[in-house]
Amino acid sequence: MTEETSKQNIDLSIQMASEAYQFLKNTTIKERAAFMNAVADQIEALGDELFTIAHSETSLPLARLTGEKARTVGQWRSYAKAVASGIYTEPRIDLAQPEKQKGDLRKYNIGLGPVVVFGASNFPFAFSTAGGDTASAIGAGCPVIVKAHPAHPKTSQIMADAIVNTVKEFGWPEGIFSHITGTSYEIGTYLTQHQNIQAVAFTGSFNGGKALFDTANRRENPIPVFAEMGSINPVFALKNLIENKAEALAKEYVSSLTLGVGQFCTNPGVFIALKGTSLDRFIAAIKNEIKETIPSNMLHKGIYDNFEKHKTIALQQPDIEIMASAEAEDGKGSAVIIKTNTKNFINNPVLSEEVFGPFGIIVTCENQEEFIQIAQKLKGQLTITVAATQDDVYENAALISLLKDKCGRLLFNGMPTGVEVVYAMQHGGPFPSTTDSRFTSVGPDAVKRFVRPISFQNWPDEFLPEELKNENPLQISRMVDGEIHSGSLKL
Amino acid sequence: MTEETSKQNIDLSIQMASEAYQFLKNTTIKERAAFMNAVADQIEALGDELFTIAHSETSLPLARLTGEKARTVGQWRSYAKAVASGIYTEPRIDLAQPEKQKGDLRKYNIGLGPVVVFGASNFPFAFSTAGGDTASAIGAGCPVIVKAHPAHPKTSQIMADAIVNTVKEFGWPEGIFSHITGTSYEIGTYLTQHQNIQAVAFTGSFNGGKALFDTANRRENPIPVFAEMGSINPVFALKNLIENKAEALAKEYVSSLTLGVGQFCTNPGVFIALKGTSLDRFIAAIKNEIKETIPSNMLHKGIYDNFEKHKTIALQQPDIEIMASAEAEDGKGSAVIIKTNTKNFINNPVLSEEVFGPFGIIVTCENQEEFIQIAQKLKGQLTITVAATQDDVYENAALISLLKDKCGRLLFNGMPTGVEVVYAMQHGGPFPSTTDSRFTSVGPDAVKRFVRPISFQNWPDEFLPEELKNENPLQISRMVDGEIHSGSLKL
Repeated sequence: MTEETSKQNIDLSIQMASEAYQFLKNTTIKERAAFMNAVADQIEALGDELFTIAHSETSLPLARLTGEKARTVGQWRSYAKAVASGIYTEPRIDLAQPEKQKGDLRKYNIGLGPVVVFGASNFPFAFSTAGGDTASAIGAGCPVIVKAHPAHPKTSQIMADAIVNTVKEFGWPEGIFSHITGTSYEIGTYLTQHQNIQAVAFTGSFNGGKALFDTANRRENPIPVFAEMGSINPVFALKNLIENKAEALAKEYVSSLTLGVGQFCTNPGVFIALKGTSLDRFIAAIKNEIKETIPSNMLHKGIYDNFEKHKTIALQQPDIEIMASAEAEDGKGSAVIIKTNTKNFINNPVLSEEVFGPFGIIVTCENQEEFIQIAQKLKGQLTITVAATQDDVYENAALISLLKDKCGRLLFNGMPTGVEVVYAMQHGGPFPSTTDSRFTSVGPDAVKRFVRPISFQNWPDEFLPEELKNENPLQISRMVDGEIHSGSLKL
Repeated sequence: MTEETSKQNIDLSIQMASEAYQFLKNTTIKERAAFMNAVADQIEALGDELFTIAHSETSLPLARLTGEKARTVGQWRSYAKAVASGIYTEPRIDLAQPEKQKGDLRKYNIGLGPVVVFGASNFPFAFSTAGGDTASAIGAGCPVIVKAHPAHPKTSQIMADAIVNTVKEFGWPEGIFSHITGTSYEIGTYLTQHQNIQAVAFTGSFNGGKALFDTANRRENPIPVFAEMGSINPVFALKNLIENKAEALAKEYVSSLTLGVGQFCTNPGVFIALKGTSLDRFIAAIKNEIKETIPSNMLHKGIYDNFEKHKTIALQQPDIEIMASAEAEDGKGSAVIIKTNTKNFINNPVLSEEVFGPFGIIVTCENQEEFIQIAQKLKGQLTITVAATQDDVYENAALISLLKDKCGRLLFNGMPTGVEVVYAMQHGGPFPSTTDSRFTSVGPDAVKRFVRPISFQNWPDEFLPEELKNENPLQISRMVDGEIHSGSLKL
């Protein structure tokens, strides 16, 4: 049973975060990068106890947890490097032109203020307490209050301790990081409504994310909420590709659908293809492939219950047919793939809702025109895959142009379940996959969610932040009078 | 009387904008920059008729209109230059690493889709139909639907024609730009609610901007609204500065407060200083200074009525005292400066509301602590001025740190009414000065409001946008494997 942080302690954490912000916003990018690298060291040094506890709380296998820990450490380090480079500080200097009566203007980005992070259950390290949201908020210069995911409270505490230890090691204000625990829905609302909170990051369900978004927008002073709420990640299998590779595609699809018991935001839940012999071969192959998969335990009872509930609702819809399934021994997390036609898929909104887990829908199209109809009706997605040959791309230019409007990441073949932590990654997308398609929650660009520009007009050099001083003590690249400039300014 | 665009024609404009988006999003940054420069040429070529009509519709003097036209042309050209540089495209390439089973990922920013622009009445050229919002949205790759401000319909039409002519000249789809006219509130709601609209830009009153923000967030698929809703732009006059320069400061303050009949978003509506002989000198000086100002006509009846209404409400508040005023001959737009104390200012929210026009409040503080109390209570502002000597800055570090949290632009002396169109300008700020402090509506960075990232995974080079092709045909700076890279990629 997760202990509930008392309201007094929540208020205290928020108060301390506000005070810590006055400190943190005045640190330089180099100081914050050093802090982030130290957090990475702390996490890297965590021993086997972390894996034992995380495994007992999440059922995730050791190999996955080992990889996820390395990824989490790598996230802190790569975000630190990006922050130190000044890329998210965006220093811009327009020098005075006294002859034109123009003053000196210097702009850079500062952190928004205290940020509340709601971690995900499916990545207990990389997207939870010490995950990408926390790393990017601190990199931006924002104190963080984490609302721990109740599915892995002990894992969350170990990760929280790693950050708290770093705060102590640096002698920084305690309020830089707080860890709030509890299971009640009200805690999230309370945190999001609090006047001192300036932004929210969330990864989870549509209902959870949308509720926080609405709460934040109803405040007297609305604040940004970046909620990553998942999606159904359609795969459009075009004519030549499926004809050439029906069996290989089936193998790849089933493997991606059932990977990690389907518990990924980018799980490819919908497969769209033309009716015909190629699709028949694909379906025959998935029936075989799915037999090879052994369903394992899902992360926690809440996810399992939701999976069964939404799967059952989907299976009760008219005009669907079960194509393939893999029964788990204890019945938990059994994989199912159903089939329906375009008309039914378009007209029945239930079939466009994410079923978080190993559940897929094959949508059969009568002709190319139906691909377009489906694309037009699609809601915003994190990813869309075009399984295609080069000829297919030429023959479906209008479809592919349209698909760009519906996703954050467009794949040419390959399945979307690998989310690399690099600059070029977009883990975001049009609503409802996220609440703001202009941002990503994976890759260093995630920092952008938590910064805002401030301009200084005519300030003496001594009072400017290091990032904007003439001397350029941090030796960063700056935009000076409209041109990129890396040196110091001799005025 | 402004003609109301029919609902059928609005729907047609939106439909055409959606179609034009399929074209515009696939143009390169160089093509859009060329278009923007051509719009600048069209506007530059407009003759005296523009000034005659604009003057008759806005009462703005010819000198001001001449300057504003040049500014508008300059805006299109400087935004075009910025767009062409690729700075808002942010190309990021992470090359495949087959040995690590990592695919090729390439990300860049595309336009969000059709944008609705609500122009302001106080800048009929620079912030209206062919103003900064329209220029930045088109630069981003978004078709624009302008809802013309009903205060200057003919001016708006001339500017719309300049853009329409450019669309024709380029042979681009007509839906790139549409001009909707009308006075009803419902048109704005209708446009903002429409499923095909992807973003909204607004400059005007709090009530207008907040209503659009709420409408956009209540949509089934919420969209971003950047509303610049003005502010009271406080001036904190610190001890030594006002002691040294009471009279000069008074001259500067009155001049800024009454410039353009006070019709600027950055008009310094509140002046905060310690009680005492220096402030007495300041007040004596403003009484003289204000006599030198000759109130002229305001922009339109709506603004005048609002000014008189809010001024009257402010003057009816308890514990205020009129310090100085300048009566207009016809009574329109008379300037008034009142005085109150900290306690009254903090406790009476009416006194923190913007009175759009030449109206100022002097707030007297008993001690330094009251500056902090006022700063803590302040809502978000576009600008805050610290009128200070260097000693004052050292003695008020906590105050100045706090003021950074309350504004988008912090001035060291000088008045905030000049808004330069440069990279380092921030015309934005925490709520309620705008709906999203992370963006600006002035300077090329205004483009950022209307773009979102999209990643391409494993796409053959021939299908990638020019901005991301190996050859780098646009010769722009790109982030490749985490490092800035300007050349082509030899793979």
